[in-house]
Amino acid sequence: MDCLFCKIVAGQIPSTKVYEDEYIYAFEDINPEAPVHVVIIPKEHIASIKELKEEHKALIGHIHYMANVIAKEKGIYDDGFRIVSNTGEKAGQTVFHLHFHLLGGREFRWPPG
Amino acid sequence: MDCLFCKIVAGQIPSTKVYEDEYIYAFEDINPEAPVHVVIIPKEHIASIKELKEEHKALIGHIHYMANVIAKEKGIYDDGFRIVSNTGEKAGQTVFHLHFHLLGGREFRWPPG
Repeated sequence: MDCLFCKIVAGQIPSTKVYEDEYIYAFEDINPEAPVHVVIIPKEHIASIKELKEEHKALIGHIHYMANVIAKEKGIYDDGFRIVSNTGEKAGQTVFHLHFHLLGGREFRWPPG
Repeated sequence: MDCLFCKIVAGQIPSTKVYEDEYIYAFEDINPEAPVHVVIIPKEHIASIKELKEEHKALIGHIHYMANVIAKEKGIYDDGFRIVSNTGEKAGQTVFHLHFHLLGGREFRWPPG
């Protein structure tokens, strides 16, 4: 599997781990766009939201549920945070392993890009 | 319940419906920031991601799963889309009923706001 994020999960490519459990892995974005910028991914290789199946629903919920825990650990829970997912190149998806950007630590503009 | 989005779900405040099922409701954002800008919400009142409970995980997954169906209906599935959720006022949350912005139909900048 020639997937950057699968290699990060496997420890073949280094990352700064923020959180890990049986289902998901979270690490610091290497090009942070906010004081806190964490990438949360499922360990299972799912290319994008387009590839979601019924059986993945709880997994996507788990990512959002655990975003609260990660936000607390990173000190952005009280002030709030933005979660962003890009599907497709035109929307800004650069790695085709489903991932959610968790951003916080500053105010955010609108529109979101 | 003095919640704008609960009133939209109940039909007490008009909206342009895009999709509806037993669990979720989707409607056109009244201040669109892209050619396609749909707001997807759970029918159940959940104030934000901070209020998610274990039992909501499948619901959050369902919203993302059905985003594909909505994207197809709105003609943005092939080119791709961005999904954004704001938690807390500083992150841009203005209505405290959990909602996901589904945006498409143009290219998106980075950072996402």
